[in-house]
Amino acid sequence: MKKVAIIGAGMMGTAMAWPLSDNGYEVRLIGTHLDNDIISSCKDNHFHPRLSRQLPDNVIPFYNNEISKALNGIDFIVSGVNSLGVHWIGKTLSPFIKPGDRIITVTKGIEANKHGNFVILPDVLKNELPETMRDQINIAAIGGPCIAGELAGRRQSCVVFAAENNDIVDYFKQALQTRYYHIWTTSDIVGLEISAALKNAYAMGVGLADGILEKSGGVDQSGSFMFNLAAALFAQGCNEICKFLKIMGVTETFPQNLPIAGDLFVTCQKGRSYRLGFLLGKGIPFNQAAEIMQGETLESALVVNQMQKILSSMVRKGVISNQDFPLMRFLIDLIHFQKPVHLEFDNFFNEECKI
Amino acid sequence: MKKVAIIGAGMMGTAMAWPLSDNGYEVRLIGTHLDNDIISSCKDNHFHPRLSRQLPDNVIPFYNNEISKALNGIDFIVSGVNSLGVHWIGKTLSPFIKPGDRIITVTKGIEANKHGNFVILPDVLKNELPETMRDQINIAAIGGPCIAGELAGRRQSCVVFAAENNDIVDYFKQALQTRYYHIWTTSDIVGLEISAALKNAYAMGVGLADGILEKSGGVDQSGSFMFNLAAALFAQGCNEICKFLKIMGVTETFPQNLPIAGDLFVTCQKGRSYRLGFLLGKGIPFNQAAEIMQGETLESALVVNQMQKILSSMVRKGVISNQDFPLMRFLIDLIHFQKPVHLEFDNFFNEECKI
Repeated sequence: MKKVAIIGAGMMGTAMAWPLSDNGYEVRLIGTHLDNDIISSCKDNHFHPRLSRQLPDNVIPFYNNEISKALNGIDFIVSGVNSLGVHWIGKTLSPFIKPGDRIITVTKGIEANKHGNFVILPDVLKNELPETMRDQINIAAIGGPCIAGELAGRRQSCVVFAAENNDIVDYFKQALQTRYYHIWTTSDIVGLEISAALKNAYAMGVGLADGILEKSGGVDQSGSFMFNLAAALFAQGCNEICKFLKIMGVTETFPQNLPIAGDLFVTCQKGRSYRLGFLLGKGIPFNQAAEIMQGETLESALVVNQMQKILSSMVRKGVISNQDFPLMRFLIDLIHFQKPVHLEFDNFFNEECKI
Repeated sequence: MKKVAIIGAGMMGTAMAWPLSDNGYEVRLIGTHLDNDIISSCKDNHFHPRLSRQLPDNVIPFYNNEISKALNGIDFIVSGVNSLGVHWIGKTLSPFIKPGDRIITVTKGIEANKHGNFVILPDVLKNELPETMRDQINIAAIGGPCIAGELAGRRQSCVVFAAENNDIVDYFKQALQTRYYHIWTTSDIVGLEISAALKNAYAMGVGLADGILEKSGGVDQSGSFMFNLAAALFAQGCNEICKFLKIMGVTETFPQNLPIAGDLFVTCQKGRSYRLGFLLGKGIPFNQAAEIMQGETLESALVVNQMQKILSSMVRKGVISNQDFPLMRFLIDLIHFQKPVHLEFDNFFNEECKI
């Protein structure tokens, strides 16, 4: 039997067990040090508490300290940690990694390095590996609209895989595609990582509309919501993701619809990022909103804080002006500087961006 | 006092009275022959029953047979009819129209002419005017995400105005922009009309996911919806709108985010098109679904039926292949040929389209 390891037993990492298992893999699900409760439940009842699902039969749970055994004889690794765990997984894998090893990552996020330059998470992971190994492993990434619980429920999902090397991305497509998990591919891993990260921030931006609605008294006596505002924020989010991709040199072959509009759409279906936006839209300062949502990883806020550094650096270098990315700047004001909500539309859509 | 006439007292046409009135216009709201009940209510109580709102003070309602009086001394006309009324409004205006007259239209839809060629509605309207007059009137169109009830509630809305002539589009922007009605402009009226029409059809496509979910037993025991499927349909909808625009020669300056992603997003917020998709997704044949929704104008179905003719003509001419526009073809199967729901993903995203 073919074997594979998923590291990180959160919802998205674990959800990958379904297509893998359906494709005949023995799936070794390795918890991080933060996943002991989850792994304990998986070992006891073969039940994943956060996904609320029985695991497929051929999933074997492992505690973090069993990683050495779990990585033995596997075909590839799925990195299922969140953005805070990327450095950790790089360090953790270092003693085990061999030339030619393959990793596919579901992690969404971006990092600013000490110069304020944008770094994609697969590179952050690579940079934690021994220097001689960095160019000898093959990393692929996953983007596009995919809620973990739905994938685990074998609901129809359309996603994009990216790797610089076509053979690698085709290998992973072969390993993971099923009748419900549909995969398109691209060599543009930078484009895919940017889209996957930024959509969390902009979904929070769309969520603001619901909060602003509630603050202003809710649905009015004639039944009107604030969907027009939400849609404008959605469109401006698409525009800014597109613009950032373009500045970062995304190629024309990048399949943008699933990773930008599609992923932003699914992330606006009342997930964490959207709910954070709702709280901020109501006028709750970020630190209080974060307390209300405590226990949840606020990827959207992490992305906004990184973008504060990245946009500042881009302005210093003359790559963009202070007026560019007005919605992201507004989110930075809310999250990073904790200013009150005051939307200005004047700078929206002033520069329409196309790839 | 500046004066303006809105012809068609439906929701969207009437909603234009708010920004016009706030900008100091006397607004003459002229019903069609189908709007007598609405105009009667407006005359009696200054209350619009479908918008569930009191009209602004400086709106004056007129019955259809008072049109001659109502059009006297106005600065411009807002065409507020639906797509079925475009020929009618052209004919109705013919006796009154003068060279240099200005019309701005909120109507969404497309038509195939007898050769199966695509015609935008402003041209359909023009073609009903006396031949000598056709090139002497100025028509502008409105697109972008704007639910009528929200505009009438003075909710923040971001829209796009289009006219071939820049002076005309600037004139209308000046006349209509307010602190809540934000207007961007383009000379690409064909692009805007295509986006505004097709988004209704594709919103129905997105709505299918909710129906398929219900048919398959609804939210599962782990709480999973079918948002991944909805997002894939959303992305493919954006892709196909973009592709159609490109075939129709849309220019690179077209501000696509509000008219495509933004307008599709707002139309997916449980409007008529979305609800029709929901019924079809449940497996209800189109003729029964249309009965369930009787009394509502099904713009989405009208667009799909026109697209059946247009795509067939494009295939005959060798402009596209039989595999192109797989989601629209699927909608044509559902609406035009009344086939059962069976989604095929293989042709999705095979040709990613950019403007």
